[in-house]
Amino acid sequence: MYKVDVGKKILSANEEYAFKNSRFLTEQGKLCLNMISSPGSGKTTILTRTISELKDKIKIGVIEGDIQTDIDAEKIRATKAPVVQINTNGACHLSAAQVSSALENLPIDNLNLIFIENVGNLVCPSAFELGEAGKIVVLSVAEGDDKPAKYPAIFAKSKVLLINKIDLLQAAHVDFEIERVKADARKLNKGIEIFPISAKTGDGMTDWYDWLIKSVKNPRL
Amino acid sequence: MYKVDVGKKILSANEEYAFKNSRFLTEQGKLCLNMISSPGSGKTTILTRTISELKDKIKIGVIEGDIQTDIDAEKIRATKAPVVQINTNGACHLSAAQVSSALENLPIDNLNLIFIENVGNLVCPSAFELGEAGKIVVLSVAEGDDKPAKYPAIFAKSKVLLINKIDLLQAAHVDFEIERVKADARKLNKGIEIFPISAKTGDGMTDWYDWLIKSVKNPRL
Repeated sequence: MYKVDVGKKILSANEEYAFKNSRFLTEQGKLCLNMISSPGSGKTTILTRTISELKDKIKIGVIEGDIQTDIDAEKIRATKAPVVQINTNGACHLSAAQVSSALENLPIDNLNLIFIENVGNLVCPSAFELGEAGKIVVLSVAEGDDKPAKYPAIFAKSKVLLINKIDLLQAAHVDFEIERVKADARKLNKGIEIFPISAKTGDGMTDWYDWLIKSVKNPRL
Repeated sequence: MYKVDVGKKILSANEEYAFKNSRFLTEQGKLCLNMISSPGSGKTTILTRTISELKDKIKIGVIEGDIQTDIDAEKIRATKAPVVQINTNGACHLSAAQVSSALENLPIDNLNLIFIENVGNLVCPSAFELGEAGKIVVLSVAEGDDKPAKYPAIFAKSKVLLINKIDLLQAAHVDFEIERVKADARKLNKGIEIFPISAKTGDGMTDWYDWLIKSVKNPRL
């Protein structure tokens, strides 16, 4: 009997595009970061604030992945940053082929940093390399502190963990132990950088900005 | 060239098991609800509170789906409700075959209602029927009020939308218009029942309980 390993085949086709994207970004000397989280963790708010506050230091472009709508791309557009929208029409993650054509539609020469905002999903996007230099996982404190244990793959693979919405903690409305999340994430990934932030109030964003400014100078991380 | 439509094939194998589960549950006269949301929307807290507060009226069993760990199953077990844990080991949704074997391991004769707590993911689980009578989608106010527009499939398919963590709204820490969510969800799904609740404080839970008590008497919904 002839057995086709479909899972592996799909991943390989994706990997070819991911390799192509990675080579292109390396040749151009541009940093590319793939931002992954559950729906509503605050990816778009983090991006709009980061773009605005770093606009004199880093030129940022965005590839915006959504199942439907361009609600998020509109928010990015309001910051004047160049943005390319990809609608996956039901698919639960971006593919490297989609990112490849999005890269062709960004004014790459004018940019230092390309953020890919993946589809809101803590599971599937972690399995698909897009050619990025690193993954950024976002976890909002409203989601609970057991998430690194329950969804380990993305925490194991990310360069940075942004713990967002810490303003909700200060008001003590949410049960969430930052130290538990840090310990669980580091158990999976010794080198992960962790920044507790509030993209709403701006709290903690400076350390994240410093990491970005440093990383743009070394875009292979 | 011979083209294999893999997506369709996988769905059909799943549908066979879903049909089998559905027939079994109908014959037994048991209500089965498939609970779907992003990670951290509060599915487990809703279940533990519901089980405890309805324990004299409805006998509830739980099929607990997680990628890794039995953290949630332990919380259910503390309520004394029977629970079967399924670890998907990376897969982003439960399959009907997994639910089929879980059903064999529940004391079905002693139960009126089986909750399936799906893997935390607002996208993939909506495409896989498990044999349930209805889907319950949970959205926490911390996730934002644009989610029905951005992730329409699950809102279009669910019998009930639970808008959870409304305690965060009252403290005005979160920007979330309940009326926008209601309108967007009803645009996709005219008949959807919507209950704003806080599983933490108990606010709004009575309407949800009334719906469950009524539905257990008519388990095909």
